Amino acid sequence: MKTATGNFFEDFRLGQKLTHATPRTLTTGDAALYTALYGARFALQSADSFAKQLGLPRSPLDDLLVFHTVFGKTVPDISLNAVANLGYAEGKFLKPVYPGATLNAVSEVIGLKENSNKQTGVVYVRTEGFDETGDKVLSYVRWVMVRKRDVNAVVAESSVPKLANAVSPDAFVSGMDFSKFDTAACGSAHLWDDYAASEKIDHVDGMTVEEAEHMMATRLYQNTARVHFNQYTEGKGRFGKRLIYGGHVISIARALSFNGLANAVKIAAINGGRHVNPLFAGDTVFAWSQVLEKAEMAGNCGALRLRLVATKNLPCADFPDKDSEGQYPDNVILDFDYWAVLPRRI
Amino acid sequence: MKTATGNFFEDFRLGQKLTHATPRTLTTGDAALYTALYGARFALQSADSFAKQLGLPRSPLDDLLVFHTVFGKTVPDISLNAVANLGYAEGKFLKPVYPGATLNAVSEVIGLKENSNKQTGVVYVRTEGFDETGDKVLSYVRWVMVRKRDVNAVVAESSVPKLANAVSPDAFVSGMDFSKFDTAACGSAHLWDDYAASEKIDHVDGMTVEEAEHMMATRLYQNTARVHFNQYTEGKGRFGKRLIYGGHVISIARALSFNGLANAVKIAAINGGRHVNPLFAGDTVFAWSQVLEKAEMAGNCGALRLRLVATKNLPCADFPDKDSEGQYPDNVILDFDYWAVLPRRI
Amino acid sequence: MKTATGNFFEDFRLGQKLTHATPRTLTTGDAALYTALYGARFALQSADSFAKQLGLPRSPLDDLLVFHTVFGKTVPDISLNAVANLGYAEGKFLKPVYPGATLNAVSEVIGLKENSNKQTGVVYVRTEGFDETGDKVLSYVRWVMVRKRDVNAVVAESSVPKLANAVSPDAFVSGMDFSKFDTAACGSAHLWDDYAASEKIDHVDGMTVEEAEHMMATRLYQNTARVHFNQYTEGKGRFGKRLIYGGHVISIARALSFNGLANAVKIAAINGGRHVNPLFAGDTVFAWSQVLEKAEMAGNCGALRLRLVATKNLPCADFPDKDSEGQYPDNVILDFDYWAVLPRRI
Repeated sequence: MKTATGNFFEDFRLGQKLTHATPRTLTTGDAALYTALYGARFALQSADSFAKQLGLPRSPLDDLLVFHTVFGKTVPDISLNAVANLGYAEGKFLKPVYPGATLNAVSEVIGLKENSNKQTGVVYVRTEGFDETGDKVLSYVRWVMVRKRDVNAVVAESSVPKLANAVSPDAFVSGMDFSKFDTAACGSAHLWDDYAASEKIDHVDGMTVEEAEHMMATRLYQNTARVHFNQYTEGKGRFGKRLIYGGHVISIARALSFNGLANAVKIAAINGGRHVNPLFAGDTVFAWSQVLEKAEMAGNCGALRLRLVATKNLPCADFPDKDSEGQYPDNVILDFDYWAVLPRRI
Repeated sequence: MKTATGNFFEDFRLGQKLTHATPRTLTTGDAALYTALYGARFALQSADSFAKQLGLPRSPLDDLLVFHTVFGKTVPDISLNAVANLGYAEGKFLKPVYPGATLNAVSEVIGLKENSNKQTGVVYVRTEGFDETGDKVLSYVRWVMVRKRDVNAVVAESSVPKLANAVSPDAFVSGMDFSKFDTAACGSAHLWDDYAASEKIDHVDGMTVEEAEHMMATRLYQNTARVHFNQYTEGKGRFGKRLIYGGHVISIARALSFNGLANAVKIAAINGGRHVNPLFAGDTVFAWSQVLEKAEMAGNCGALRLRLVATKNLPCADFPDKDSEGQYPDNVILDFDYWAVLPRRI
Repeated sequence: MKTATGNFFEDFRLGQKLTHATPRTLTTGDAALYTALYGARFALQSADSFAKQLGLPRSPLDDLLVFHTVFGKTVPDISLNAVANLGYAEGKFLKPVYPGATLNAVSEVIGLKENSNKQTGVVYVRTEGFDETGDKVLSYVRWVMVRKRDVNAVVAESSVPKLANAVSPDAFVSGMDFSKFDTAACGSAHLWDDYAASEKIDHVDGMTVEEAEHMMATRLYQNTARVHFNQYTEGKGRFGKRLIYGGHVISIARALSFNGLANAVKIAAINGGRHVNPLFAGDTVFAWSQVLEKAEMAGNCGALRLRLVATKNLPCADFPDKDSEGQYPDNVILDFDYWAVLPRRI
């Protein structure tokens, strides 16, 4: 059998290390496609001149392009037989990635828990992305529900990892000098100081998604999850249509959040994230943010812990949210918790 | 309020300068996307080897890619509350832009005229695009009808600028040596000398437009005009669908014009342009050109002033045009007036 | 008449050489688009680091991107008036093409045969692609059925070239050192030795095609064949819809074949190929391969001669194929015969 069939739940062992295939050199071509797919306008990733003002050699690639690329590599080994991608935690962007860098990925199984129905189990992996020098550029945990090949298979003992509720801002290394941060170039005068904990921001704009777009994006990330590409099979399946890669939703929501967070040029960490409902082509994505926490950083930087909520076909003026029992309305598709870096008033 | 709401008519003042956000580094990635979106085949922008023969260091970016990028930056400040983009004038391409250049844009309000209904007014701006060295690469005037926030707001006194009917060819600096111009590489033997004033050319080919394409293009230009992206809102609006960015039409028509104008490798100036009817996804664009004027240039160059007319769902063998009263048929979507540079017989 | 009308059958002469227009500089931007359009994951084209391990300076561009680019240049001269693209033979990839290379193409008419209905004839051309140093990077033969302008026109005497059934592996120059071939990076442990002649592989995955995707691809190749772009005209035509460029099918099938042939990182030659049924947007492509022949190569390389069969809306677990009389079922769209290079066990 030469065709990859992916791992099933009983194939995973605690502590198992998986070296993922296909290293990938990211280029300005990938950056241009990322702009065309999401319309991101954060100045740091848009203009070399802006990046140089902050002490970087040139514009780094978008943090989420790095995330999706590393994530994509893990799919054939981790989630080819997944039922659902359940969550993220402890995501850290450790080194800026520039065009020309070649990324590869390694995962370690840090938790396993069979479901009571014996049909599936939850696999927890910590995935690390490295560049061609061997430096770690990204680390994150995700957990995913994976089918068993054989319901009667003996599985590893249950072990659920303790995961941080949020990444500590102490760990952030911005590597940038924000003293010459040009807010006019960014299009907003609002500094870190101007955001209040618990403040909510409706990002107003909406973005409709087409099949060609999400498939081009997902192939760009070399993500091979079958549900995104194959209408013949998906047309007969659960939803009757292709399911959009969750990372595509995160990138759309992040791009929409520019309108209200234009100076939040850098993602420092991903604290958590859940895809709470599916998105399909033809749907229009809206987003709102809430400031969860604030942290000062060295230099003129400050970090905002933000909750980024995305909806489909539902504008966010009323900040649609989960109810008191934690249930999300059908139109809410993403609940994402991350730290962003902004300039701080001196 | 952290979300940008854009300027309304009463917010503009004569002489006001607006420094637009998000500088943008254009790369070969953007050039590749431009090719994929329009299929342009002009040799100067297609092949470094051809550009070198004309004395340039490499292929410059397409003039219209530069135009759309600069234009895109102005949208959040000038036309977020626009009803209609009314026209262009005095567009000059002043310096070739190469991959790696970072563009930014500044506009000056050069005219204001409230409409008699007091609901809207016309704003005239001269927009200038600069590269990272501070050199001016593009200058053009556009005027746009903008809503008032408050019908009763006091507005600036009316002042309508005098605009040149056409850019004078004296101003053109080609910076290229056309003595080694390789017409075989361009695919046409027709030199400047072979075109007669008033000659009409049917460009024959048609190009159907998809939602994914125009949205990717418009995001590539970081153009945030909402009508192009949001089916949820536009579905309830004037047309019931997303409106395609007018610049997308110009680029399609220019690419179609290759068939008949293959040696017109460079746009020197934009004399004027009007989007006379909207274009929607699913429509097929056709185009024809008319030679309006001819001008010799230094070296072996000549300039043709061309009228480029685009239609939707209507082939151009009969050169569909406005009637004697200046009214355009519904199928005509663009009337664009520009100068192009061609090789001249020695 | 300034608009190109293309050559008709009676315009071709045996031995005629056609220098095709529009040289094209390929960049990392084109490579990124190629990834986004097909999702190819072969490590050689994906990662500079992998290419360096094999002794190359960086990742070469995908062989098929080179093929489509050279092919595209020939369309305005060879097949603008074609009824059908009948076949390929003797395709040789002679030099790796890296980002930054500028390609141009020349064709020689090597065969002509009028059809008995006098309406059309078959034109055989050998096309050669060159880079900006004048080195030949690609050579292939194709034959195509072309309309006559005038049914009564006198045509050249019939001459049908003898074409090799397959390219001889003796001709292959891999230029790569496979002794450090990293199969883990490729995602498969299956070496050349592990494939048996006549073995069949179902590539399992399916890929649905959208209009925006195939048009972007075909424009990227500057292929101007009208049937791919113009719904207005094609809607009234034979199929009622736009026909997808056959090369798009080859690239999709090749990308799907990664799953089962992950170490087949390089196409050495194209022995033959036929587009046996049309593909349209909305269809889902599947593929299977059969090993036709094996050949050892110098160093640690081996070549597999592979038949790559693509279907639409039909999974390939049963290896759908032509019948005993050589007739293909309607769902089979491509029958492609090529040599691929893999690492060989020492």
